Amino acid sequence: MYYQIREGFPKIDFKYLDPGILTLGVILLEELEACYNQFGFSDSTLMECRYNTQHIQGNFDSYHDYVFGIIFGLNKQHILKVQDKIAVYIKKNLLLIVIIEDTNNSFINKTKELMKRIKIENITLERLTFGFLERLISDEYLLLEQIETEISNHEDRINDRDLDKNFNSQITEIRKNLLLLDNYYQQLMDVGEELQENGADIFTEDNLNFFRVFTDRVFRLSNNTRMLQDYCVHVREAYHARLEYDLNKIMKLFTVVTTIFLPLTLIVGWYGMNFTAMPELTWKFGYLFVIVLSIIVAIICILFFRKKHFL
Amino acid sequence: MYYQIREGFPKIDFKYLDPGILTLGVILLEELEACYNQFGFSDSTLMECRYNTQHIQGNFDSYHDYVFGIIFGLNKQHILKVQDKIAVYIKKNLLLIVIIEDTNNSFINKTKELMKRIKIENITLERLTFGFLERLISDEYLLLEQIETEISNHEDRINDRDLDKNFNSQITEIRKNLLLLDNYYQQLMDVGEELQENGADIFTEDNLNFFRVFTDRVFRLSNNTRMLQDYCVHVREAYHARLEYDLNKIMKLFTVVTTIFLPLTLIVGWYGMNFTAMPELTWKFGYLFVIVLSIIVAIICILFFRKKHFL
Amino acid sequence: MYYQIREGFPKIDFKYLDPGILTLGVILLEELEACYNQFGFSDSTLMECRYNTQHIQGNFDSYHDYVFGIIFGLNKQHILKVQDKIAVYIKKNLLLIVIIEDTNNSFINKTKELMKRIKIENITLERLTFGFLERLISDEYLLLEQIETEISNHEDRINDRDLDKNFNSQITEIRKNLLLLDNYYQQLMDVGEELQENGADIFTEDNLNFFRVFTDRVFRLSNNTRMLQDYCVHVREAYHARLEYDLNKIMKLFTVVTTIFLPLTLIVGWYGMNFTAMPELTWKFGYLFVIVLSIIVAIICILFFRKKHFL
Amino acid sequence: MYYQIREGFPKIDFKYLDPGILTLGVILLEELEACYNQFGFSDSTLMECRYNTQHIQGNFDSYHDYVFGIIFGLNKQHILKVQDKIAVYIKKNLLLIVIIEDTNNSFINKTKELMKRIKIENITLERLTFGFLERLISDEYLLLEQIETEISNHEDRINDRDLDKNFNSQITEIRKNLLLLDNYYQQLMDVGEELQENGADIFTEDNLNFFRVFTDRVFRLSNNTRMLQDYCVHVREAYHARLEYDLNKIMKLFTVVTTIFLPLTLIVGWYGMNFTAMPELTWKFGYLFVIVLSIIVAIICILFFRKKHFL
Amino acid sequence: MYYQIREGFPKIDFKYLDPGILTLGVILLEELEACYNQFGFSDSTLMECRYNTQHIQGNFDSYHDYVFGIIFGLNKQHILKVQDKIAVYIKKNLLLIVIIEDTNNSFINKTKELMKRIKIENITLERLTFGFLERLISDEYLLLEQIETEISNHEDRINDRDLDKNFNSQITEIRKNLLLLDNYYQQLMDVGEELQENGADIFTEDNLNFFRVFTDRVFRLSNNTRMLQDYCVHVREAYHARLEYDLNKIMKLFTVVTTIFLPLTLIVGWYGMNFTAMPELTWKFGYLFVIVLSIIVAIICILFFRKKHFL
Ligand SMILES: [Mg+2]
Ligand SMILES: [Mg+2]
Ligand SMILES: [Mg+2]
Ligand SMILES: [Mg+2]
Ligand SMILES: [Mg+2]
Ligand SMILES: [Mg+2]
Ligand SMILES: [Mg+2]
Ligand SMILES: [Mg+2]
Ligand SMILES: [Mg+2]
Ligand SMILES: [Mg+2]
Ligand SMILES: [Mg+2]
Ligand SMILES: [Mg+2]
Ligand SMILES: [Mg+2]
Ligand SMILES: [Mg+2]
Ligand SMILES: [Mg+2]
Ligand SMILES: [Mg+2]
Ligand SMILES: [Mg+2]
Ligand SMILES: [Mg+2]
Ligand SMILES: [Mg+2]
Ligand SMILES: [Mg+2]
Ligand SMILES: [Mg+2]
Ligand SMILES: [Mg+2]
Ligand SMILES: [Mg+2]
Ligand SMILES: [Mg+2]
Ligand SMILES: [Mg+2]
Ligand SMILES: [Mg+2]
Ligand SMILES: [Mg+2]
Ligand SMILES: [Mg+2]
Ligand SMILES: [Mg+2]
Ligand SMILES: [Mg+2]
Ligand SMILES: [Mg+2]
Repeated sequence: MYYQIREGFPKIDFKYLDPGILTLGVILLEELEACYNQFGFSDSTLMECRYNTQHIQGNFDSYHDYVFGIIFGLNKQHILKVQDKIAVYIKKNLLLIVIIEDTNNSFINKTKELMKRIKIENITLERLTFGFLERLISDEYLLLEQIETEISNHEDRINDRDLDKNFNSQITEIRKNLLLLDNYYQQLMDVGEELQENGADIFTEDNLNFFRVFTDRVFRLSNNTRMLQDYCVHVREAYHARLEYDLNKIMKLFTVVTTIFLPLTLIVGWYGMNFTAMPELTWKFGYLFVIVLSIIVAIICILFFRKKHFL
Repeated sequence: MYYQIREGFPKIDFKYLDPGILTLGVILLEELEACYNQFGFSDSTLMECRYNTQHIQGNFDSYHDYVFGIIFGLNKQHILKVQDKIAVYIKKNLLLIVIIEDTNNSFINKTKELMKRIKIENITLERLTFGFLERLISDEYLLLEQIETEISNHEDRINDRDLDKNFNSQITEIRKNLLLLDNYYQQLMDVGEELQENGADIFTEDNLNFFRVFTDRVFRLSNNTRMLQDYCVHVREAYHARLEYDLNKIMKLFTVVTTIFLPLTLIVGWYGMNFTAMPELTWKFGYLFVIVLSIIVAIICILFFRKKHFL
Repeated sequence: MYYQIREGFPKIDFKYLDPGILTLGVILLEELEACYNQFGFSDSTLMECRYNTQHIQGNFDSYHDYVFGIIFGLNKQHILKVQDKIAVYIKKNLLLIVIIEDTNNSFINKTKELMKRIKIENITLERLTFGFLERLISDEYLLLEQIETEISNHEDRINDRDLDKNFNSQITEIRKNLLLLDNYYQQLMDVGEELQENGADIFTEDNLNFFRVFTDRVFRLSNNTRMLQDYCVHVREAYHARLEYDLNKIMKLFTVVTTIFLPLTLIVGWYGMNFTAMPELTWKFGYLFVIVLSIIVAIICILFFRKKHFL
Repeated sequence: MYYQIREGFPKIDFKYLDPGILTLGVILLEELEACYNQFGFSDSTLMECRYNTQHIQGNFDSYHDYVFGIIFGLNKQHILKVQDKIAVYIKKNLLLIVIIEDTNNSFINKTKELMKRIKIENITLERLTFGFLERLISDEYLLLEQIETEISNHEDRINDRDLDKNFNSQITEIRKNLLLLDNYYQQLMDVGEELQENGADIFTEDNLNFFRVFTDRVFRLSNNTRMLQDYCVHVREAYHARLEYDLNKIMKLFTVVTTIFLPLTLIVGWYGMNFTAMPELTWKFGYLFVIVLSIIVAIICILFFRKKHFL
Repeated sequence: MYYQIREGFPKIDFKYLDPGILTLGVILLEELEACYNQFGFSDSTLMECRYNTQHIQGNFDSYHDYVFGIIFGLNKQHILKVQDKIAVYIKKNLLLIVIIEDTNNSFINKTKELMKRIKIENITLERLTFGFLERLISDEYLLLEQIETEISNHEDRINDRDLDKNFNSQITEIRKNLLLLDNYYQQLMDVGEELQENGADIFTEDNLNFFRVFTDRVFRLSNNTRMLQDYCVHVREAYHARLEYDLNKIMKLFTVVTTIFLPLTLIVGWYGMNFTAMPELTWKFGYLFVIVLSIIVAIICILFFRKKHFL
């Protein structure tokens, strides 16, 4: 569908497009195939739209009198697969969004949000494009904040008594997502930079700072993603150190227990021997002696480990 | 063999080459030696073709009126050795592929695929070259997806009961392959960038975006390879953490078992002593007392470790 | 409030601003909304001021006849959240600071400090701007020195007998703060570089070295932050090695204790057997023999471990 | 000695040098001191030749009408010390190699090899220089292949039963060598790039691709060195994981052994107690009962560890 | 003091400075404050001299007709604190060194060394400046060689029987020093590069290669520092692996000892039971049987661990 960006957003047919009126097109790949020639779009752009790859990293390029690019959406289940894919054509008075794949209508919804927010009085091609791009990242800071809270929760759990067995696979999951997010922002930064260069000469120089603002925002998102990646590494290293610290504590406890009981067991074994002539066995204070000896041995062991800071 | 890129793809001999008709040459190194002078190719290019190295990293360069370069194929058994090697000469109306080494005919097959896919109506030197390059990476996304699945399977196996002894050498193998793949893509990106620059001035400016599309695709491949490298590091670190977590669990179990049995063994050893005067031994409730004492000691130990979260 | 930078710093109202006299404005976001049009500031700058993000990474840009930028303050509790936010507009004879958010009045106080330090005789727009920026980093070296002392204290504690359980989470906390600080300095370096470029042509070329001095100082701060980050990594690795060294020591002690007592326990168990015919039991020197045997076994064990450097 | 590069390679004296005939000079530092003035070489170049440092990282620079540089050879015993050192002067029709230090005549031999391989019919200054440089790296691929085989052998040994005690110091040795090699190649790449720039304007533009070919080859060497460095890191990490895996296996075995014997030892200790009234001791089936009990306990332990996948 | 660089190095007073004669000034900060105006040095340079920071990272910049910069000396006790600080002004025929802080007179001594080495016959401003800078790094290679020997000694000690407890904190100390040294060289490289650019146009183009030589030397120092840093990482990792290897060896020994003695202890405990009817106890060959049984069990254990390569 093509919408003229004026009062009431009238829908018009491709055939009646007025190049003098700013228009927003949201069409399917099939519709593009029918009309890309009339718009003067290159063969190779259509080829890129059709090229059936499931991997992220879009790209924007300036052509003679239009800008063309692909934007991929995120699919958090698979690092290399992508959920959604759109193509974007921008030429004088036209922003054309080609929906190639759009599970759960995420791109369609962003387009609808865009149209609700348009202020017709001062709309320009640059504002319209910026508005669309800005919709794409509108929820990202919230997402990053959620991820930060998640990592921070993991960090707090390191000092809990019971380390969750899944701690580690959860951190790996988060790191995987951050890798993916970073890739997604790299893609959008390329988009912003390409538009800023205005290679197709379709934007007014004075309005290029809209794209600068967009690039800056995505850059900050990307930067925050990297900081979260580093934070993840810190948390993983802290988890590792906790495990090693615990192991030392366990082995100290174990050594103490064993070292106290081994000599006592030797003593009681000693007086369990069946030699016919063991004076202590028939000595009046023999039993008392072995009780006192055991207590002294136990106390010496405990004092030794106290000194060694094992207890 | 030389094929004129027109209806029927007629094979022609080197002597009857028509510089006005787009031609694809697929020849052996021996054939090149006989004819490189007539084409006006430099001595140093032939030297490069003959130079007998078994290591990856090709290079493309623009000369006066032609582009020359070497492309190496992958050999997954050895990081530094290469399986296949071709040279490519591109000049006006000629794409010349010199097969230098080609085990299992991989390059020859790619050339055949290329010829099947040519659409004669709109073929140009740029489209032909792009078509050839595009064949070289046609299976790479599939390969990367396989590798991702492989790494992901390894990740899932970390939480299995039985850690495979070969887990680690398998991950090392994958990382080695990714290093190799990344090198291979770096090589192809250099090719794409050299062609984009059009230093020999043999391409039409308008058609240069074919090479841009190629470079972009290889860049995305390389980027995905790096993401997979990072993913490998995460999985290896998770494996490491699993081992450490397990060790802690084992040592806790061990400490519990030992700490329960050591005092009990001391008690039974105690009443195995042969002192003539041990009142408990002849006491009416002596045996009952030692049974109760053992149960109490065992319960105290268990409660202690419960509190310490060892059980 | 607007202050004319001359004797007495007279406050004047926005309406009576004299573009011929150097003026410092410190206003709230609401006040900006009322007057940004008269100053000729762009819509998109106001939008940036209002844009409600809680994340660091400001940016400065040169517009037609003014410079605009956002500076975020630090919030050490949350990596991605920011405590304070100001906007800065610089045009001929005007430094306008817009306080957007300013918990505990940190920015307001820095502005007051600035005005106390102004020397009216040689003040220029460049000196005023430099003075303001220089206030922003005035306490940073002290902060870095505190952090260095803190890390150094942690390093010294590694060789203490008792490793603190919280050692690790404290180091993670410091590393988190350093990540944050580095981000903060990156932001300020961007500010300094933008001003140095003088894209809006509002500064005298001769005075640009004030901004060079500022950028250099922030660069050094950033450099020191990274050195401290590396120092943290070294300390963490040393802590890790200490834990492993200790574990080895513990296990050596444990092995020694066990290996001495196990054979002795076997010997005394041996002569605790109830066979009717055990010649040693009734032998005259039987008991003496077992005493001597035990001492010899113990000595052999100790000598063995001495040789193995376990003791 | 100076050799005119024509039939028979006539040696000539410095005094009879013909600037119109391509000449290769191979002289000692003392000889240079006598003649550098006549050649018009700068003071500072001689100073560099004499400067007595034992550390790698040469440098090439273009002067008014000549190129001057230092090349250091490798000394694998010490990272920072160098075995050999030559200076190279290149001017119109002259390649002058100054042997400053040359243990085991490695540089002298490379010069002799060079002269054997010269084809007089098409020799130029560029070919001569390239020939000399190419000699310097002629054995490097072989060396890298040897190192790769060495690392690969280490990797295979990780899965051997007996981990060599020296495994680790051997890997450290290899990594040290790779650091050194990388430095050596960086030096040669700088040489190639400086010659490619032709700053002294002594080479024909058409022949500059000889230096491009050289730089590309060294770049590939350097790249392979880095890949081997990464490979080393992977092998070291695999070795580390093997140690940890083994430790877990050992501790599992140990826990199983201890947990089976501890209850059995308790049981036999139990019936070794000397209480006057222990009904089991005189029970008809007492001995049979304790045999069966022991077998049951052992079986339960084994089944428990089977279920826990310890066996 | 100001010294005219001619026969006898006559000291002259500031007032009688002859701008036509090359002069070396070595003055204190107080003296600078009195005269910087007459030299035409900017306010901001004096401000930089006075700015009381204790942190490394100097900077050099070209002004209208002079070069100004700060150089910090090293203080190995504190990463962020600096021991010494000088300012350097260079203008036509004047090298002015301002001693701001100079514990143990290190800078003063370097200036004296410089004057001893001046050869008056061919002295120029460039040679004088180079001579001064070259003095600053004259002992650095020796220092790096000492550090390399130190690291190498640490590496050798890894294979010693007794790992020093302080091994780790010593390596951390070295790494801290290398971080510091690298920072110091970065600072000097900036100095060399600034002088090479000759932004103040006070040097003869022909003499700029003195600064190139200086920059190259410092670059090599920096490079060697980084190689030593990497070497440190290798040594630390080797130390870590040694600890883990030892732990495995200890645990193997321990497991062997325990596994041999536990069954033997069970056997002797078994025949220590007091059942009235234990046929073996009264059997003629009972004692012989238990001796043989014990030897067989011990041999089986030893053979088992031999096969498992624990012994
Ligand atoms: Mg990062
Ligand atoms: Mg990462
Ligand atoms: Mg970081
Ligand atoms: Mg980082
Ligand atoms: Mg990182
Ligand atoms: Mg980190
Ligand atoms: Mg680590
Ligand atoms: Mg990466
Ligand atoms: Mg890697
Ligand atoms: Mg990454
Ligand atoms: Mg990385
Ligand atoms: Mg990583
Ligand atoms: Mg790691
Ligand atoms: Mg760093
Ligand atoms: Mg970091
Ligand atoms: Mg670093
Ligand atoms: Mg680092
Ligand atoms: Mg480090
Ligand atoms: Mg690397
Ligand atoms: Mg790598
Ligand atoms: Mg790696
Ligand atoms: Mg890498
Ligand atoms: Mg790496
Ligand atoms: Mg560092
Ligand atoms: Mg490095
Ligand atoms: Mg480092
Ligand atoms: Mg390195
Ligand atoms: Mg390293
Ligand atoms: Mg390395
Ligand atoms: Mg490195
Ligand atoms: Mg490491």
